[in-house]
Order: sequence, then structure tokens, then C-alpha cells
Amino acid sequence: MAVRYEFIKECKQSGARLGRLHTPHGVIETPIFMPVGTQATVKTISPEELKEMEAQIILSNTYHLFLRPGHELVKEAGGLHKFMNWDRPILTDSGGFQVFSLSNLRKITEEGVNFRSHLNGEKLFIGPETAMEIQNALGADIIMAFDECPPYPADKSYVKASTDRTYRWLKRCMEAHTRSDEQALFGIVQGGMHEDLRQEAAKQLVDLDLPGYAIGGLSVGESKEMMYEVLSYTTPHLPQNKARYLMGVGSPDALIQGAIQGIDLFDCVLPTRIARNGTTMTSQGRLVVRNAKYARDFTPLDPNCDCYTCRNYSRAYIRHLIKADETFGLRLTSYHNLYFLLDLMDKVRDAIRNDRLLDFRDEFMIQYYGSLHPDTSF
Amino acid sequence: MAVRYEFIKECKQSGARLGRLHTPHGVIETPIFMPVGTQATVKTISPEELKEMEAQIILSNTYHLFLRPGHELVKEAGGLHKFMNWDRPILTDSGGFQVFSLSNLRKITEEGVNFRSHLNGEKLFIGPETAMEIQNALGADIIMAFDECPPYPADKSYVKASTDRTYRWLKRCMEAHTRSDEQALFGIVQGGMHEDLRQEAAKQLVDLDLPGYAIGGLSVGESKEMMYEVLSYTTPHLPQNKARYLMGVGSPDALIQGAIQGIDLFDCVLPTRIARNGTTMTSQGRLVVRNAKYARDFTPLDPNCDCYTCRNYSRAYIRHLIKADETFGLRLTSYHNLYFLLDLMDKVRDAIRNDRLLDFRDEFMIQYYGSLHPDTSF
Repeated sequence: MAVRYEFIKECKQSGARLGRLHTPHGVIETPIFMPVGTQATVKTISPEELKEMEAQIILSNTYHLFLRPGHELVKEAGGLHKFMNWDRPILTDSGGFQVFSLSNLRKITEEGVNFRSHLNGEKLFIGPETAMEIQNALGADIIMAFDECPPYPADKSYVKASTDRTYRWLKRCMEAHTRSDEQALFGIVQGGMHEDLRQEAAKQLVDLDLPGYAIGGLSVGESKEMMYEVLSYTTPHLPQNKARYLMGVGSPDALIQGAIQGIDLFDCVLPTRIARNGTTMTSQGRLVVRNAKYARDFTPLDPNCDCYTCRNYSRAYIRHLIKADETFGLRLTSYHNLYFLLDLMDKVRDAIRNDRLLDFRDEFMIQYYGSLHPDTSF
Repeated sequence: MAVRYEFIKECKQSGARLGRLHTPHGVIETPIFMPVGTQATVKTISPEELKEMEAQIILSNTYHLFLRPGHELVKEAGGLHKFMNWDRPILTDSGGFQVFSLSNLRKITEEGVNFRSHLNGEKLFIGPETAMEIQNALGADIIMAFDECPPYPADKSYVKASTDRTYRWLKRCMEAHTRSDEQALFGIVQGGMHEDLRQEAAKQLVDLDLPGYAIGGLSVGESKEMMYEVLSYTTPHLPQNKARYLMGVGSPDALIQGAIQGIDLFDCVLPTRIARNGTTMTSQGRLVVRNAKYARDFTPLDPNCDCYTCRNYSRAYIRHLIKADETFGLRLTSYHNLYFLLDLMDKVRDAIRNDRLLDFRDEFMIQYYGSLHPDTSF
């Protein structure tokens, strides 16, 4: 198998898992956050900077690379690792989520999804076999089954039909996957906000003995309480000896709570997206550095942070760069935010090791959000 | 004196000078190209990357920093070096050139220039005393006298009156300059394309025994032949023991020819500006990497270059990034172009050392432009 999850220990206080994921491009300590490099680059950040901040694995988006520059071109380049100069593990998603969230005029059939490119309107198709062909060409260490992420809210009958079809698509993915020695195919548990559908989906997938399992269809507009509830009745049905990946989640509170509920892998564009808008995550909570009140603030973004940005630049300088449309400012905020989340997961792993993740969560929540039950989402 | 030029040797073949410029933030080997960091950052590039490519000094623009974030703020931050995290030498221009080229509704009087900000229309004034106040606050190692860069073409009578006023402004700058122990004030030789005006201006300035001399008013639309002609009757009137700076010049041919004509310092936005448009300078000449023909070209921008970009990325990848609006692509092309010019000046210094700069020029011209007398400007 291309990827093997090694369980190390459970946090006696919280039940969170500490582990290692062995991949063809190296070992990942879990739980971990994966920076997102949508178009074969983590926006504004170099591979060397990702290593400097101890990123262990990144995610890249199949839908985007299929559209531009095309998976065949990436294959000719020697695969995604070589193309983008990143020699550590990569996970690619299936393209399913973006087909549903970004493309136009999409039509779902049993075969797959017909849609128009959001870039130029071109008529395109992705189905399970296409998703495998693209991801086999890209060559990531972990690849994802083609699924539908049902809208929220949706009729239970729709979610049921969609989840069943996602299961049939998964089996076609397994059939079509040609590089299972080098690339691990993860299945995706769907089922909306319905306990019975989630449990059925989880059990069906576990029966297929896949190298890992993702939980999809969350962080789509539901409350965080509802997301945690879905996790509470889904993760217990996933095997202890396989990795678990919660897709699209990256707010600090949800990373910690997800780990508590047994998740190993997370990804989200949040840290880099808000960074490009001048919003940063600090040990004292969110800080919108483009605000006027930081114009003459010569302290670092986060006085408790030892990242490249905080060691060398002031809030005043970063604000100046952002106001002046200098992309170096976005590099500095992106660097800091990614560092913040990677460092947070490092602390989460430490807390698991020391059987105190619930204590850590409470300390963090008070310090970052000022409350154990904040209203804000990040 | 804040800055001292040390003459090392003359190229026996070309007459070019090899030297060292001693400044409060370190020694610069000349002839040298100065990357431009207009708004207290060299666009897309970090200070560490500038050091990696062996940039020895950078230029920053007084006009831009006066407008945003304001020189008082930079002073509060501890000066420009600290504000932008660059501990090597900095040169600031006087703001004069940008007032004339960027601002609106400008009106020149003996006192100085009234103008409106190109950012928000605000009514502002810069005169010799203001230019000194701003540059004293920024704290660069080398600061420039406030001058008018006359338009080209212009009546000789206008150029004469302007050059005389620039001289009177220089004397007011010397009067107003408060930090001559830490900052060297360079005068600017103007005089348009007129031999007698240039000579008179040069002699007047030399009589003031300034720490260095710039040649302004060139690269403003005149032919290269005309620029070289102006240099030919201007530099001989400048003293051997002071640095000479040719403002706004950065095409490879003009850097070499400028060195041959006795210039020590150059600056230009060319390498970074064309980089952001997908145009690169290589040992085989210009290469527009965004062109379709590089879509599947997996070789480096320049196979003979050992810069970070060329060691790690292909033309195909860089083209993909630029087409996909990823700023990392602009970082890679900017890095390469700056490296190319810094490396070129390193080779120029070597050629001077070995008394073969004319041979080097001819070899370079044939390789880069395919001709000893190219039509193209860069």
C-alpha cells in the first residue's frame, strides 16, 4: 500500500489520536493541517518557505489543474511534485467539490458531471474514471475518490440518492485507479447531516478496506455544533488503523475540536485567503492588520510568534505594504497565518502526547476567542 | 564623510573604473546595479532573497514614501533600513523625477514644486528643504539633491534656466541637510543634450566637493547614441575620487557601455517591471516566458543560469503561474532578472580587473542581442 497510518497513542483526556502517516514522499505527523496549493502553488509562498514553517504535506486541486495547465502537461513535466518543486507529500482532491462550487451549468448523471469551465465556458466532463486519470497523471501521494458534496440544506431523499451514487462512483474509482502502489486512494464519507446515512456510508467504505477515509460534506454552511455532531456519529465507525481526513476545515477552534473527535488530516484555504485580505491569526486572536489603528504600530503581528514575519517586520510595515498593493505584504501575512496553524497543530500533538488536549483547547479558546463558546467562525 | 569612493583600477582596454564605495551600512563593489524598492520593498522580493542574489545596495523612492506611508512614520519606525528589514546600503532619490513624471498639476517655482498626489489628488509641495527633510528622516546612506529633470526634447533656453535652478536648489539642499555624517548628499549633473550646459553644470558641482555625483536627465526618450555622447562629454569633468551614478539606466547594453564610460552606480525598474509582464533576460537574450511556445518547455528560463529560479523551475511552470495570476510566478521572474543584472555587473567588474571590458561587451552583445549594434532597447 502506498500509504500506511501508524497509530501512536490516544489522548487519555480527549480521545484524540496521535499518529504517523507513511507516504512515498515521507512521514507525516498527525493530526496535521495541510496548506492548500490550488494551482500547483501555495499562494505567495515558496516551497522552501513551506519547509521552513514545517509544512509536512500540501493539498492541490484537481479541478483547477485539469483546467489549467492540464494534467497531461503536469505528467509530461514529471508529475506535480517535480512541476512545482515540492518533494514532500501531496494530496489532491477529486475535483468533485470544485465542479459543484465553481463551474457553471453543471449536470450530474450516473456517468459523472458535465459542466462548463469557470475560466472560459468550455464544455467539460469529469466522472470517476476521469478523476482517476487526472490524479494518476498528477501523481500525488494521496488521491481522493470522485464524490458529490450535496448542497446544504438538502432533502434527505436527495442526500440519500447522492450518497449512494458517491459510493458507486468510489467503486468505479477503485477500478480505474492504475497506480495504487504509489498513490493511496481515500474514500469520502458523505451522508449530509443524517446519522443513519453517515453510518451506512462509513460502513460501506470501511468494508472496502481503503488506505484512508475522508469526511466530506461538512463546513458547507451548517453550524459548528452540527458539524461536531456529525463527526461524533461518524468517526467511531472508521477503523483505528487508517487515516481520517476532515475536508475543508481550517479555523483554529475546528482544528482542535476535530482532533478531539479523532481526525488526523485537515485542509482549508482560510489562512491564506484571509491573509490576502489583511487578516491574521495571532495568539491574542484575529488581527486585521490593514486597519488604520496599526499604521504606527511597530510591534510584530504576534509578539508571541517566532515566524519569519514576526521576527523581522512590524504591523506598520505590513499595513503599508498591503495599502500600497505590494504583494510582499500578502506573502508576509500568508506566511504568518500558515505558520500559526502549523504551530497550532504542533501544540495539539504535544497536548495529545501529554494527555491534556481538553485543557489545551480551553486555554486556547480563552486566549484566542476570549470565550469557550465564541460566536465568530475564525 | 558618510561615503567614500575608493578607486581600485582602470580597465586598460576600456577606461572603465573598478572601485569600492564605503558607506555606513557596508562596502559596495562598483560598477554595480541597484535594484529598485520604490515603496520600501523590491516588488515581490524579500530582503533575504536580495542578499542571496548578492544585491549590495538598493534604491528607494522619496516621492512614494513621502506620499505613503509618510517619512515621519518611517522615521518613527527607526528609519528605512529598520522599517523594511534591509541592513545593507540604501540610496534614496530626491523625489524630483517622480514629481515631474507621476504627479498632476505640478507648478515649478524658485521655491520648489507644487503638485497634486497621483494617489488621491492632495495638494503637496516639495522643494530642496523638503527633499532633505524627507530623506534625512528616511535615513538612506546616499541621498540625492532635489533637481528638475527637464523634459526631452526641450528648448536650450529652458534647459539652461532649469539647470541653473537645479544648481541653486543643490546649494539649498547642502544648507538644509542635517545628517551629513551619516548620509552622503550626491549632486545631479543636468544640462540636457547640450555639451556646454553639461560641462558647466559638472564644473559647478565639482567645485562644491560633494561626496558623489549623479548624471540625470538621461534615458528620457533620447537615443542610446545620444546618451553615450552626453556621457562622453560629461564624465571626464567628474573627479576620479568620487562615485558617479547614472540615474534610471538598466538595460544590459547600457550598463556595460555606461561602465565603459566611467559610471559606478546604476538603477532601473526595468528588470522587475518586465518580469511582472512575463519577460525575462537570459544569456541568449530576451525570453517572453508567457508566450504559448513555452507551455510545454520543461527547461529553465536560462540553461546557463544558476539562480534560484533556474535551478528549480521550468519555463512551463513559470508560464502556468503567470497565466493563472499566481504572484509566485512574478517572484520567480523578478528574482531571475535581478540576478541576471547583478551577475552581469559581477562579470563587468571581472572584465575590468582583467583589462578586457571591450571584448566582454562585444561577446555579450553578440550572445544577447545577436548584434554589436542592436535596434532593441533591452
